Amino acid sequence: MRFFEDLSVGDTYEYGTYDVTEDEILEFAEQYDPQWFHTDPERAEEESMYGGLIASGWHTVAMTMRLIVDGYVGDMESLGAKGVDELRWWAPVSPGDALSIENEVLELTPESESRGLAKIKTTTYAERESGDVEKVCSFVGLSMFGRKRDE
Amino acid sequence: MRFFEDLSVGDTYEYGTYDVTEDEILEFAEQYDPQWFHTDPERAEEESMYGGLIASGWHTVAMTMRLIVDGYVGDMESLGAKGVDELRWWAPVSPGDALSIENEVLELTPESESRGLAKIKTTTYAERESGDVEKVCSFVGLSMFGRKRDE
Repeated sequence: MRFFEDLSVGDTYEYGTYDVTEDEILEFAEQYDPQWFHTDPERAEEESMYGGLIASGWHTVAMTMRLIVDGYVGDMESLGAKGVDELRWWAPVSPGDALSIENEVLELTPESESRGLAKIKTTTYAERESGDVEKVCSFVGLSMFGRKRDE
Repeated sequence: MRFFEDLSVGDTYEYGTYDVTEDEILEFAEQYDPQWFHTDPERAEEESMYGGLIASGWHTVAMTMRLIVDGYVGDMESLGAKGVDELRWWAPVSPGDALSIENEVLELTPESESRGLAKIKTTTYAERESGDVEKVCSFVGLSMFGRKRDE
């Protein structure tokens, strides 16, 4: 188990990958973001300015979160998050993409004897079926972690 | 169908409700945010600082998005979003809560002949099983909408 004290400003971590499927894009969007360019592959192909079906931005963030938890938060004393700043969707995510993430610790603030706040910037990249890699999403998370106890 | 021009700064819209279930909290978290306070009701009850199972913050946002789409975006010429600023989780969401949202148009910027950018603040409220209502989440969305065409 790792704690707030195990993070250092400037640390970077890279993790991957999450394979994006059309079925999962449709399933997420039908439940949470039923806009036609997320739920109707044929209409998206014909009419969308994105040229085809794309994942809900919230789905992209959810897949990113899974990479974060599997990558490092799952091994830390995580206490949840206060929020995120500057969430941006730079480019769409499509079926067949493979997502990976890069994390950089920006700022560390002890908040109490038992808890610290970490500002961590996460950037999500999509490797396209062509092999090209593109930045698709980034945000600055305000995450709380437990502090080491002297025992 | 409504367009960018149909929005006015200061407009507010309220929509609801989305009923939060334990099953859906578990399903979302097992796929996207498998931290124990989102996936293990018994351990959450015994050990979590939140006093019981809570929804992933990303799940809260996803349910909020569903209320946004059903509420107004589904009837607009929506072109997706660039991102969100100042996303905050003010209080946890629990099984049995009923979510509703309030939206306020903060800023409108035409970006081209065919597209405008709307800054819209969304606030999510949870009505608890006790009947109490609490703010649980807020963010400022940067959403793109199609403009009316003269034909």
